[in-house]
Amino acid sequence: MKAFEIAPFKMIDGELYILDQTKLPASEEYLQIKTKEDIYDAILKLKVRGAPAIGVAAAYGIWVSTEEIEAENFSDFFSAFLKIKDYIGASRPTAVNLGWVLERIKKRLVEIGDELNHQVEGNTQDEINPRDKANFSKIQIRKMIFEEVEKIRMEDEAACYSMGEYGLSLLKPGMGILTHCNAGTIATSKYGTCLAPVYLGTTRKYDFKVFADETRPLLQGARLTAWELQKSGIDVTLICDNMASIVMKNGWIDAVVVGCDRLAANGDGANKIGTSGVAILAKEYGIPFYMYVPTSTIDLLMPTGADIKIEERNGEEITKMWYEKPMAPEGVKTYNPAFDITDAEYITAVITEKGIVYPPYDVNLKKLFEDEK
Amino acid sequence: MKAFEIAPFKMIDGELYILDQTKLPASEEYLQIKTKEDIYDAILKLKVRGAPAIGVAAAYGIWVSTEEIEAENFSDFFSAFLKIKDYIGASRPTAVNLGWVLERIKKRLVEIGDELNHQVEGNTQDEINPRDKANFSKIQIRKMIFEEVEKIRMEDEAACYSMGEYGLSLLKPGMGILTHCNAGTIATSKYGTCLAPVYLGTTRKYDFKVFADETRPLLQGARLTAWELQKSGIDVTLICDNMASIVMKNGWIDAVVVGCDRLAANGDGANKIGTSGVAILAKEYGIPFYMYVPTSTIDLLMPTGADIKIEERNGEEITKMWYEKPMAPEGVKTYNPAFDITDAEYITAVITEKGIVYPPYDVNLKKLFEDEK
Repeated sequence: MKAFEIAPFKMIDGELYILDQTKLPASEEYLQIKTKEDIYDAILKLKVRGAPAIGVAAAYGIWVSTEEIEAENFSDFFSAFLKIKDYIGASRPTAVNLGWVLERIKKRLVEIGDELNHQVEGNTQDEINPRDKANFSKIQIRKMIFEEVEKIRMEDEAACYSMGEYGLSLLKPGMGILTHCNAGTIATSKYGTCLAPVYLGTTRKYDFKVFADETRPLLQGARLTAWELQKSGIDVTLICDNMASIVMKNGWIDAVVVGCDRLAANGDGANKIGTSGVAILAKEYGIPFYMYVPTSTIDLLMPTGADIKIEERNGEEITKMWYEKPMAPEGVKTYNPAFDITDAEYITAVITEKGIVYPPYDVNLKKLFEDEK
Repeated sequence: MKAFEIAPFKMIDGELYILDQTKLPASEEYLQIKTKEDIYDAILKLKVRGAPAIGVAAAYGIWVSTEEIEAENFSDFFSAFLKIKDYIGASRPTAVNLGWVLERIKKRLVEIGDELNHQVEGNTQDEINPRDKANFSKIQIRKMIFEEVEKIRMEDEAACYSMGEYGLSLLKPGMGILTHCNAGTIATSKYGTCLAPVYLGTTRKYDFKVFADETRPLLQGARLTAWELQKSGIDVTLICDNMASIVMKNGWIDAVVVGCDRLAANGDGANKIGTSGVAILAKEYGIPFYMYVPTSTIDLLMPTGADIKIEERNGEEITKMWYEKPMAPEGVKTYNPAFDITDAEYITAVITEKGIVYPPYDVNLKKLFEDEK
């Protein structure tokens, strides 16, 4: 399988490259990230997207950006680091993983300072311990940051792999699988969330037949999911969103797999617009509906899906994007929510990297975190 | 309300113009139809679409085409007419209304021959009754055909008006109404089928809030429904097909109205791809789902929806049409059914020009025709 040649970012000889997903599927371009401005721009313009991929790309990005820091002691390095961190963090402030990853690296940098016996605080050069200047090695510190970044990536990869294994235990060879939007390899470090079992299953000759909803208005299913599956030699059929019902009725779908943007404590899940409709159809046709949810996406402080605010986007995504000629009357009113909430009752199981969670979700999701303590 | 300025065809001073629906909504062009080639082309290239509109446009078209017949007696005129009829009939052979309308005009022409005491059959000029030549008036015959064509149009208009009245009896002022595809004014002579109650209600200050599914892949909802409702000053909001679930969940939809391409004896209905999904969502959210079905569309010889063959169209409608740049990977497999079957169990009521039919459809649809006898 050629799947794992595809990656949302690549490190080659210490240089970071990001796959420009806005150019897919027309062309496959990897952009070199050399500065904080490069990574800011890549995240802002959705060249890298998918919560886990954004987080890990930002981790590599901040590491690359520290190259430009000119400092003679740890305190100065740390101050400069914080400025870069805040700058990159502002590229997509609503991305939970982005903030989380940047905080984690900051925390690690504080530890690094401790481990190296560096003085972290110090407002002026005079206050810096002279020993600190002598011992200061940017190369060493950057090496230690890099180790943390690699750890972040590997943890993400391992979580996806684990979701893949759990998910695969629910599937059988030859099954037809419907997916919506893109929660695949290029939305994570590797494997994807809901597509992880498809990739793992393919290496084990499961020969799945995947159906990809095109996912209007931004067409992530057509542009990204169909692209990465096709490139990996997996049997994929692209359909319009409104064809989900007929492919289910035709008996072609044995399971639905989708990602998740945020899961409330009662098991209601926010995901790409259209997910709730697919879930209702699956229930009606008696097809299991699996939501893939890394535990970092579970928000136990959010009681139900009704508490999740739905982002509304510009209506021109519906009326003008992609088109050569106007495809809707000028000035027509639109409604363009980016997400919808799938009620817990339609979700057969929630697949996390720590295991499969079944209803009642209000009880069983909590257990997932209690076991941890 | 400006609604009724819009028409799929117009007769102005004896000249036929057809609204080129392939140009909507970018430009509003009426093409003059002067020859059989013009009307053939307009139907073939979907410049006029919607079963009733195709039928009535073909009726006007065949009348216009008879202008070019050079005949000295009725027999010759009739032969030439049959050739034109076969030619126009081939423009879209699967369109039931087209064949039906052309047959009806042929039948009327035979009657006209009788009424005028013309000899219909006659292989050679010698066999023609000399009286026939003397009496033959192309102008008179064309006038009589025109009366039949007008009758066909008025019957269609009256049927739509009647569906509008029956449909309106199921709706209340201020309701939110979701529709899929286009079964509006420009798909019929006037009023539309499922949009007829919206137009009639609007003249009576019902102030509906209509939501139009864009209807991928051909975007009839965005290009046609949103256009005709907006032009008529009706409150319309365009959404992507996959947003039907969230607008229902938001509590914005009180009724779903759709057209129908063919209704089987058990009440299963074929309509534009995606209709069955909307019907299932409506049932789940407890919203009534109304299918508008002129009795000419009811096929009692078709026992169930499973017997209706679903036309599959070119996948490039999904992957390439409308787009400036490739929106799906080159060569990706697609599935592009033009219709799907909505099972009778999801249809709250069938609205016909003869009245509202409720389940059990296998019993009550038959009654509709028995009453006629």
